[in-house]
Amino acid sequence: MASGSWEEFFAVHLPPTDFEDNRTLLKEFCERHDKYGNKIVLVTSGGTTVPLEHNTVRFVDNFSAGTRGSASAEYFLEHGYAVIFMHRQKSLEPFTRHFSGQKLLDMLEIQERGPNTTITVRPDSVDVLAPVLVRYKAALAAGAVLQVAFTSVSEYFWLLRAACECLARLGPRALLYLAAAVSDFYIPKDRVPTHKMQSESGAPVIQLQLVPKMLAPLVNLWVPAAYVVSFKLETDESLLIPKARAALEKYKHKMVVANMLQSRHHRVILVSPEASQEIVLTREDIHAGVDIESAIVSEIVRLHAEHLAGGGAGAALPAGAGAAAAAAAAAAGWPPRSPR
Amino acid sequence: MASGSWEEFFAVHLPPTDFEDNRTLLKEFCERHDKYGNKIVLVTSGGTTVPLEHNTVRFVDNFSAGTRGSASAEYFLEHGYAVIFMHRQKSLEPFTRHFSGQKLLDMLEIQERGPNTTITVRPDSVDVLAPVLVRYKAALAAGAVLQVAFTSVSEYFWLLRAACECLARLGPRALLYLAAAVSDFYIPKDRVPTHKMQSESGAPVIQLQLVPKMLAPLVNLWVPAAYVVSFKLETDESLLIPKARAALEKYKHKMVVANMLQSRHHRVILVSPEASQEIVLTREDIHAGVDIESAIVSEIVRLHAEHLAGGGAGAALPAGAGAAAAAAAAAAGWPPRSPR
Repeated sequence: MASGSWEEFFAVHLPPTDFEDNRTLLKEFCERHDKYGNKIVLVTSGGTTVPLEHNTVRFVDNFSAGTRGSASAEYFLEHGYAVIFMHRQKSLEPFTRHFSGQKLLDMLEIQERGPNTTITVRPDSVDVLAPVLVRYKAALAAGAVLQVAFTSVSEYFWLLRAACECLARLGPRALLYLAAAVSDFYIPKDRVPTHKMQSESGAPVIQLQLVPKMLAPLVNLWVPAAYVVSFKLETDESLLIPKARAALEKYKHKMVVANMLQSRHHRVILVSPEASQEIVLTREDIHAGVDIESAIVSEIVRLHAEHLAGGGAGAALPAGAGAAAAAAAAAAGWPPRSPR
Repeated sequence: MASGSWEEFFAVHLPPTDFEDNRTLLKEFCERHDKYGNKIVLVTSGGTTVPLEHNTVRFVDNFSAGTRGSASAEYFLEHGYAVIFMHRQKSLEPFTRHFSGQKLLDMLEIQERGPNTTITVRPDSVDVLAPVLVRYKAALAAGAVLQVAFTSVSEYFWLLRAACECLARLGPRALLYLAAAVSDFYIPKDRVPTHKMQSESGAPVIQLQLVPKMLAPLVNLWVPAAYVVSFKLETDESLLIPKARAALEKYKHKMVVANMLQSRHHRVILVSPEASQEIVLTREDIHAGVDIESAIVSEIVRLHAEHLAGGGAGAALPAGAGAAAAAAAAAAGWPPRSPR
């Protein structure tokens, strides 16, 4: 079955209940950072769900813990970007991602001194926690991060479009880093049963429909001047580069970060219309706990600066000229260009 | 399509890679607490997944954050039980459940004093954190909790059977509190595609098969002397009690905790072969942040004590006789009875 159009998707699926609140937050965040001439990156992270019932007990989910997105958000902050972190509810978040499970509780010790109880971080954990905490507090104090959460694929699309509408005013200073694992399939609203499917009535057959490709209106209509990076995760190596190139030709965006499910934490290929570039962590990097996202983000930040220096027209400068051009661009400032 | 037998399920689905490690942990935990005559509760928590591909990118999931299970585990510890907390990877866990997202980081403040950096919990957060931390440290020091994690429904079943095999030696001192949201359906292994489904080939049809009902061999063969509590979540009120009663008649276990998706955090019905009993939080309870799990667990602990006092034969004592009988039972100790 063919996918419906994106207009039809928004017509059929109502906005999530907290949508207006989130839209207000997005708008304020983008206006504030636009005023200061900052760059904003929208990082999407985690998987989307497709409900199988209206009273959702079961759903189809996409595998993603949010590792890539939450780590990348931290590195974008280090590069001076303001970050909209649009993530799957309960998936990994920047800063807290380092302390999953009971790790933080295990670092704490309690001192009961008469009427005064104090709780401190064990001295041997301070070295681990302090650098993360310092960066977290700094980002918070600067108002440099806005977190918004989604669960279902339709919530994701509503938030994505709203964020783009707010980001459009930044023109080429907006960077979209679409790392979320978005469902390709969904169940049309009118075919979703109201109540929990009963196992007594036998095993159900789930007929899925293709999700419309939102990258098309996003690149062409919503944020035409932005630097857009999409992600492609495959399990069959022979499909990886061909599919990345096909996506670039179809949607005309700037880059696909292509990766294999099995090796995604130590190898990615940055595929742009002009070239492709492999990033691989060495064994020493892996042992030292280096995040591959640090290298991915550095390279994308460099290319984004080149894009900005080139007037946002998409013409890449020769490598090496990027940094100087970016510095010049930053000094000159960028007039917000609204394509709307 | 009918479900296969449980024997067939274990024959077809291989054990998870870390299975032997977890089995060793379960065995040691049960032997240690059995030696001291302790009661052990197995709390299962969170949803199971059904992979749609061998290299899992997509899966069907069951809605469950692990709220019920993680809260209940804490209350069982307070009642002196040793707790096996068998939970979905990344779902809520006892103690840390109180501090989701960035709550814990927000409680910390950093002091840089010359060469010495210290991190402390803000004085206004100590009152919130201290009681939880004290209980967490006490449980840890007593070795009273064992956590094991699953993701897919087949991992869940392998762990469940292994836990039962270890718990059998405790006879009626074992309590099973099966709060996990287990898939009713799965995709037989030979019909799961190896690679990620390609959206170019059109929307797929997913043909699911019924999962065998593990409660049958669990009650009859694996832990015949244990006190077994299952859970039933419905979205249609008219089905709730009839389905709970049908389950008790079919599987001959001790109790079904029946709840509606919409009201599950403030209303449950404990359905036993003899009676049914509603537990409802008052508006004041809800405002005061009372967990309904506190009441559920108290009542089940009381009934389990009666069951023990009755020789584990399932005869319930009149209400009120429970506590005294349990005390007498604890003093006398229970000879481990292995049904295997």
